[in-house]
Amino acid sequence: MGLVVQKFGGTSVADAERIHRAARRAIRAQLDGNRVVMVISAMGQTTDQLIALAHQVSKNPPKRELDVLLTTGEQVSIALMAMAIAESGEKAISLTAGQVGLVTDSTHARARIRRINRERIEKELAEDKIVICAGFQGIDEGGELTTLGRGASDTTAVALAAVLEAEACEIYTDVDGIYTADPRIVPQARKIDCISYDEMLEMASLGAGVMHSRAVEFGKKYGVPIRVRSSLTDTAGTEIVASTPGMEDVVVRGATLKEDLATIVFTDVPNEPGAAARIFSELATRDIIIDDIMQTIHRDGRLANIGFTSEAGDLPAIRAVADQLVESWPSAQYEVSEPISKVSVIGIGMRSHSGVARKMFATLAAGSINIENISTSEIVISCMVRAGDGQKALQLLHAAFELDRESPSD
Amino acid sequence: MGLVVQKFGGTSVADAERIHRAARRAIRAQLDGNRVVMVISAMGQTTDQLIALAHQVSKNPPKRELDVLLTTGEQVSIALMAMAIAESGEKAISLTAGQVGLVTDSTHARARIRRINRERIEKELAEDKIVICAGFQGIDEGGELTTLGRGASDTTAVALAAVLEAEACEIYTDVDGIYTADPRIVPQARKIDCISYDEMLEMASLGAGVMHSRAVEFGKKYGVPIRVRSSLTDTAGTEIVASTPGMEDVVVRGATLKEDLATIVFTDVPNEPGAAARIFSELATRDIIIDDIMQTIHRDGRLANIGFTSEAGDLPAIRAVADQLVESWPSAQYEVSEPISKVSVIGIGMRSHSGVARKMFATLAAGSINIENISTSEIVISCMVRAGDGQKALQLLHAAFELDRESPSD
Repeated sequence: MGLVVQKFGGTSVADAERIHRAARRAIRAQLDGNRVVMVISAMGQTTDQLIALAHQVSKNPPKRELDVLLTTGEQVSIALMAMAIAESGEKAISLTAGQVGLVTDSTHARARIRRINRERIEKELAEDKIVICAGFQGIDEGGELTTLGRGASDTTAVALAAVLEAEACEIYTDVDGIYTADPRIVPQARKIDCISYDEMLEMASLGAGVMHSRAVEFGKKYGVPIRVRSSLTDTAGTEIVASTPGMEDVVVRGATLKEDLATIVFTDVPNEPGAAARIFSELATRDIIIDDIMQTIHRDGRLANIGFTSEAGDLPAIRAVADQLVESWPSAQYEVSEPISKVSVIGIGMRSHSGVARKMFATLAAGSINIENISTSEIVISCMVRAGDGQKALQLLHAAFELDRESPSD
Repeated sequence: MGLVVQKFGGTSVADAERIHRAARRAIRAQLDGNRVVMVISAMGQTTDQLIALAHQVSKNPPKRELDVLLTTGEQVSIALMAMAIAESGEKAISLTAGQVGLVTDSTHARARIRRINRERIEKELAEDKIVICAGFQGIDEGGELTTLGRGASDTTAVALAAVLEAEACEIYTDVDGIYTADPRIVPQARKIDCISYDEMLEMASLGAGVMHSRAVEFGKKYGVPIRVRSSLTDTAGTEIVASTPGMEDVVVRGATLKEDLATIVFTDVPNEPGAAARIFSELATRDIIIDDIMQTIHRDGRLANIGFTSEAGDLPAIRAVADQLVESWPSAQYEVSEPISKVSVIGIGMRSHSGVARKMFATLAAGSINIENISTSEIVISCMVRAGDGQKALQLLHAAFELDRESPSD
């Protein structure tokens, strides 16, 4: 008998009707002969509402207490899901992270999973129950409540699937799979039937919001097949799997657009050991995520320019750090760019095909879109463009790489 | 340095402003040189809202899952209280029942406390923190979440005060103490400065809704002085303490009215061993609370009448039980009375004073109020009256026993 993990996000459990719909899906999987473990997020906008409540009480709520607060969201939804399944006459039990034994480190608000006990879940499965686990939350070695970071119920689901050696981890969401590009920007975007972990990782980190990238990493590390599916329909969705040689026949699998970015460049920083380390450690302690670091050295090697891109929303925090830093370096200054966007094409086929970069640059040039900056990895080529050009760039690249056409390995 | 337990009910933490007001009260107690443990209920109407949510999903939610759901209410409020205290610059930590180690039996929805660990709370107090414990909830030996029953945050508070050997347990609520009668019915009602555990127990079970009676029992058993106070003002409130000989100088401490009752009488039940046991065990398994049982035997001792009073709201459930029972006893029938009310006078002074019953009956007679039934205990005399006479009866008794006058031991 197979074991399947089904994860339902906030929109898929937003009200009593949707909870019952998700319950029916789990029951159907059980009737099909599977043992079923569900992983549930907080209902609808609950987490945002709880955060708003915290900010009514405190300008800067302690992270430990914020975790105590936020873990209630999933506890509500697992209890309701268990009630819905019981109402349908089937056996179910809800388990908090503490009851599962999902142990994390003690980093509140972004804890990492250390280990997961199989015992309790397996005991309940052996009694033919559908086991409903709280996503997003954990418990540290001392019994403190922790959370894994926004969107991390996906991670809970894939990690559970790995530990329980599930046949698959199904991620139910409000879209019916992963698309070649965001359909709100590119109406011709097509659902991808099958994508590799590596491609999905890049797409997730480059702005395709459907899956949490840490969940994909877990899937890759432990070889868990992940299926992204709609909670509203029965269409097949997208499978995320290990890459096969055949998958490389497709040169570009998808294209992404990340908007609201800014570039920050420190000029004339002393070219001495620790200068870059100081910049990025100051930023890291404030939880500012940075990207695309570049460094150039000039004036006889005595001074350097150090730049990076970041989300525009982090600019106030970045400016605060930067003001302090340039005060301690008399020669240094910093500049913040106009808003920019990052358009990328992703595909493991690039490993074995050349000419992708040339085609990308030519497409943007033909559209009169200036490239501000370029970065590449083995399976990604990204170009920074002016904010106003981003959506047009994505549309042009989607057409140029024929992503709207059915491909052989799809 | 003294230790004080402060319990805040739902209305006292209903919004951010009230949470901050409660936080200031705890901080002030700490600045006065006390170690402070807070016990917090769910905010405002949260518990009712969660129950309504459960009933959207299920007509008959499993009690285990209802407890998983309901315990989130207190978890939200303890986190917010810890944030409010931190916002004021003081140290605080929230603890769920699991983190405290408040262990109950496994009776979901009305669990009984088995033991409370002092260690975690004392460790946090030793670090000069205000310790904020979740009321109402517990954890059983297997780590299952339990609740102690509606209104049981009072019980949590008094039990913690007993275990921690606190100097006092302060119950903060939306009224400023215990009154000689419900001021909504008797405008002359007066706040009682000092009342014995026994009197408070009777008043609580006879309809004075301020304190949970199990909490008073705990207070009596472990000798914890309880102070009922307003969370909105600084007035002294009511002290609940062990009785002293001086307290018996007051013959009647207070009067109560319990409305919406009904009397159910089974007639011509076989007078055989187990007949009464069968009636009351059937009712007990359906959680129907019954009161004032009476039995008379007739027809040569072969048949009996067995009656009791109960809350009118339980009548549908009682009729279901009664229909089944009379079916198995061919001779038997049952009758349900018109709605009735129970008016009572309470005072430990009755132990040493006579004439209270005579005065009570004379007062009701002078008011042309018919007495349907009488029950007495050592410190209580209760009369059943027609529903329409209840409030007038309470007013007449309050005046007759001069409860509006300051009394020597008060």
